Amino acid sequence: MNASAGLRDALAGIFAAGAYSVDPAETLVYGYDNSRRQAAPDAVVFPTAHDEVVALVAACRRLGVPIVARGRGTNTTGATVPVAGGVVVSFERMNRIVEIDPANRLAVVEPGVLNGALQAALAPHGFFWPPDPTSSPYCTIGGNLACNSAGPRAVKYGAPRENTLGLRAVAGTGEDFRCGYRTTKGATGYDLTRLLIGAEGTLALITEATLKLTPLPGARRLLRATYTTIQSAALAVSRIMAQPVVPCALEFLDDEALRLARAHGGDAIPVAGAMLLIEADGEPDTLAASVDAIARAARGEGLIELVAANDAAEADALWAARKALSPALRSIAPMKINEDVVVPVSRVPELIGGLKAISARHAIPIVNFGHAGNGNIHVNLLYRPEDAAQAAAAPDCLAAVFDLVLALGGTLSGEHGIGLVKREFLPRALDATSLALMRRIKAQFDPDGLLNPGKLLPD
Amino acid sequence: MNASAGLRDALAGIFAAGAYSVDPAETLVYGYDNSRRQAAPDAVVFPTAHDEVVALVAACRRLGVPIVARGRGTNTTGATVPVAGGVVVSFERMNRIVEIDPANRLAVVEPGVLNGALQAALAPHGFFWPPDPTSSPYCTIGGNLACNSAGPRAVKYGAPRENTLGLRAVAGTGEDFRCGYRTTKGATGYDLTRLLIGAEGTLALITEATLKLTPLPGARRLLRATYTTIQSAALAVSRIMAQPVVPCALEFLDDEALRLARAHGGDAIPVAGAMLLIEADGEPDTLAASVDAIARAARGEGLIELVAANDAAEADALWAARKALSPALRSIAPMKINEDVVVPVSRVPELIGGLKAISARHAIPIVNFGHAGNGNIHVNLLYRPEDAAQAAAAPDCLAAVFDLVLALGGTLSGEHGIGLVKREFLPRALDATSLALMRRIKAQFDPDGLLNPGKLLPD
Ligand SMILES: Cc1cc2nc3c(=O)[nH]c(=O)nc-3n(C[C@H](O)[C@H](O)[C@H](O)COP(=O)(O)OP(=O)(O)OC[C@H]3O[C@@H](n4cnc5c(N)ncnc54)[C@H](O)[C@@H]3O)c2cc1C
Ligand SMILES: Cc1cc2nc3c(=O)[nH]c(=O)nc-3n(C[C@H](O)[C@H](O)[C@H](O)COP(=O)(O)OP(=O)(O)OC[C@H]3O[C@@H](n4cnc5c(N)ncnc54)[C@H](O)[C@@H]3O)c2cc1C
Repeated sequence: MNASAGLRDALAGIFAAGAYSVDPAETLVYGYDNSRRQAAPDAVVFPTAHDEVVALVAACRRLGVPIVARGRGTNTTGATVPVAGGVVVSFERMNRIVEIDPANRLAVVEPGVLNGALQAALAPHGFFWPPDPTSSPYCTIGGNLACNSAGPRAVKYGAPRENTLGLRAVAGTGEDFRCGYRTTKGATGYDLTRLLIGAEGTLALITEATLKLTPLPGARRLLRATYTTIQSAALAVSRIMAQPVVPCALEFLDDEALRLARAHGGDAIPVAGAMLLIEADGEPDTLAASVDAIARAARGEGLIELVAANDAAEADALWAARKALSPALRSIAPMKINEDVVVPVSRVPELIGGLKAISARHAIPIVNFGHAGNGNIHVNLLYRPEDAAQAAAAPDCLAAVFDLVLALGGTLSGEHGIGLVKREFLPRALDATSLALMRRIKAQFDPDGLLNPGKLLPD
Repeated sequence: MNASAGLRDALAGIFAAGAYSVDPAETLVYGYDNSRRQAAPDAVVFPTAHDEVVALVAACRRLGVPIVARGRGTNTTGATVPVAGGVVVSFERMNRIVEIDPANRLAVVEPGVLNGALQAALAPHGFFWPPDPTSSPYCTIGGNLACNSAGPRAVKYGAPRENTLGLRAVAGTGEDFRCGYRTTKGATGYDLTRLLIGAEGTLALITEATLKLTPLPGARRLLRATYTTIQSAALAVSRIMAQPVVPCALEFLDDEALRLARAHGGDAIPVAGAMLLIEADGEPDTLAASVDAIARAARGEGLIELVAANDAAEADALWAARKALSPALRSIAPMKINEDVVVPVSRVPELIGGLKAISARHAIPIVNFGHAGNGNIHVNLLYRPEDAAQAAAAPDCLAAVFDLVLALGGTLSGEHGIGLVKREFLPRALDATSLALMRRIKAQFDPDGLLNPGKLLPD
């Protein structure tokens, strides 16, 4: 039993039996996430209403107990690991879709709604919410907002910061507030909504979100383009993004990623130096013209083959192979370091070239794939921990990757966030004043440093 | 001479002769803006480089002198009026377009670049920057960012918060910093970029902006739809926004606004109960399908006539009449109170109905037009100050307008901001905790309260 008597009493006063636990055997599974880091929380609570969250934060503040918000723990950065102990607030039971308002193109949701569940509820109304992490079936809107998570569609439709109208939240002070609007425009005070988005639960607990919806396109078509070399594929990405028709997905797989994808996707996945999955969407009578424009840009030096998926089944197979990459990598290389760096699109060819050189120099295989249309490349360093030389080289190799990215005008994370595992690198990406301002802002929302301590901002 | 000897010495140490003035005869014109409020600054400076701004803020902080950023003073809220005296920083000479990078769909600009000048420079590259205030030829990017200003195109393309990647700025502490990215995605720390956007120069002076560009559509078509009543036009707006094809402009004019527009636009402007100007854009081979979809939604009860502009000249005439409305209103009613309230689109019919009732109750004519696709209606209270009854009723009438808007789930300003003239109303729109958080954030950027004192946040 890690929880103090004071904490146990406080939780019993707020939550019904079964809506919290202080039993280490039960709370254990709320101590880790997809980062494979782990720590033991003192308690886990399962609020079902905003007011319980308000009461919880007040109690924790009084007792000086840390608070870690948690959706479904699918983040890759250790962002939900309770490194300082305290209470994990699992929002899994605060999962109501409060309102779907098609006329105003908005939905109001509790934070524990699964991304996939929301999309399913919106589809009959003809709408979707653009952020679409590959983890969509088992990650929450609260987690998506807190990480500014996105996915393939962000290239055309943006990330949570472009698709959220307003929030309800509880700051680390225990004060609750609403920010933002139910309208698509607003110039009435500072933008607290976007400040909370991407803050990884360090400023406030989000208890409700008003999301901006986008009409579902009437049709989509997937193209598969293979290239002789990674460079020629990277150049095609630049050409596609320099012309006016924006694809709704522009995914890149290097040769190694292709080999892995083939293991999952079978013959639909070709052997090549690199592949692009390019999707266009639009209304049925206009889609062909958009596909033509994008296909023209995809053609060029090094193209092996450009083919459209014949039907939805073939498109699904291609996407399934792409989506299987992240778990597949884990199975072949237990010690993968999975980064999601981002560079300006025109620098993707240099990034890919530089990564090859870094991989060779440190003798650590690097597999690359990801959302190339945003310049957001998932860089996977694969090494065997039992290989002492590789294990020793890995930290330098990672630092070299970040230095390269920053030198190319990019930044540490496009969508996964900073969490526990990248915060020591933050001072490389941000200037000292920005970092100091972030700390000062943090202190206004959470003066006692109770919310997700040890995350995002370096000590 | 209002400037102290200390201030004069400091300015002489930073700026060349001709790049600042402490002569009241010269500084006078920097003391007012489009709000018709006025106050006398102690000095005006015309920086040409970031470092001069850094030195200026340091000197003003040392001397305790207020600092008011100014683009071209076209704002309507008194946001640039130096109510506490001090130095007006006119960015008019910091007007270089530093970089246009079509491959990465971004431009880097100094804050004094005129919106119209930027659009002209971007067009040959096939791009535009979506925020398009009607004042585009004579307002600056710095002003656009500081107010989160938008215009007709926001309904499809968003406001500055959706179209800005990064900023360089100098806080009220004198510290300078960069925030945001050169990439279209980022999850690396708190979003300081959006915090500065819409902050009306109260947190930091923006000295450079990295703007996200959008490809110019290949074609556009303007429709003119007239309706028997304001209500039927407002219902058409709801129908148009509830279907998937988003127009690139959806402007509304009520009967009074139409009469005024006709005085400027001549016979192109019909007589009717209300009119919508509906513009669609897209690629040439897909535009017709989009126009059809929108036209279907525009049809319905109360439609008098739906016609497409025959050619660019006719479309220009229609737009010119719409754009002339704001100045025209001023000429007929010197005491217009011009608000830019915003409500969820589906509530526009109730807003319009409620405004009619408020107008009747207070015996003050109200003319309405604006960006109906965002629910952003310019509400103009027209009164003759020499009419004692009207002048006395005006404040209550305005308060009733705001109460109505808030009751409909809307907010005080869609794009003009708060400035001097609306700040007393802010506590009606924001909850006490949000307002307190904004004040605390302000204190981190500007602990001495030097930046634009008396604006945005109420005392
Ligand atoms: C197979 C797989 C594929 C993935 N693909 C993608 C991808 O394509 N794109 C992408 O961006 N990410 C991806 N991810 C990462 C992850 O799914 C996302 O970061 C997701 O948004 C996390 O959601 P979650 O509900 O699991 O949040 P958690 O992991 O539980 O929490 C994430 C962060 O959000 C905070 N948080 C959660 N809820 C709240 C709340 N209510 N208030 C305040 N803070 C809160 C937590 O404190 C933590 O800092 C993937 C992960 C996996 C395992
Ligand atoms: C005829 C007319 C039509 C208009 N139409 C529209 C419209 O359609 N949509 C719309 O939104 N607005 C409209 N406006 C209002 C106005 O043009 C906008 O608010 C515009 O963005 C102001 O730009 P400016 O350069 O004149 O800024 P200013 O009026 O000089 O300043 C506005 C605010 O920005 C701050 N500021 C300026 N530069 C900086 C900087 N570098 N750093 C920090 N803060 C800074 C100032 O302190 C002030 O708070 C219109 C105005 C007129 C007169």
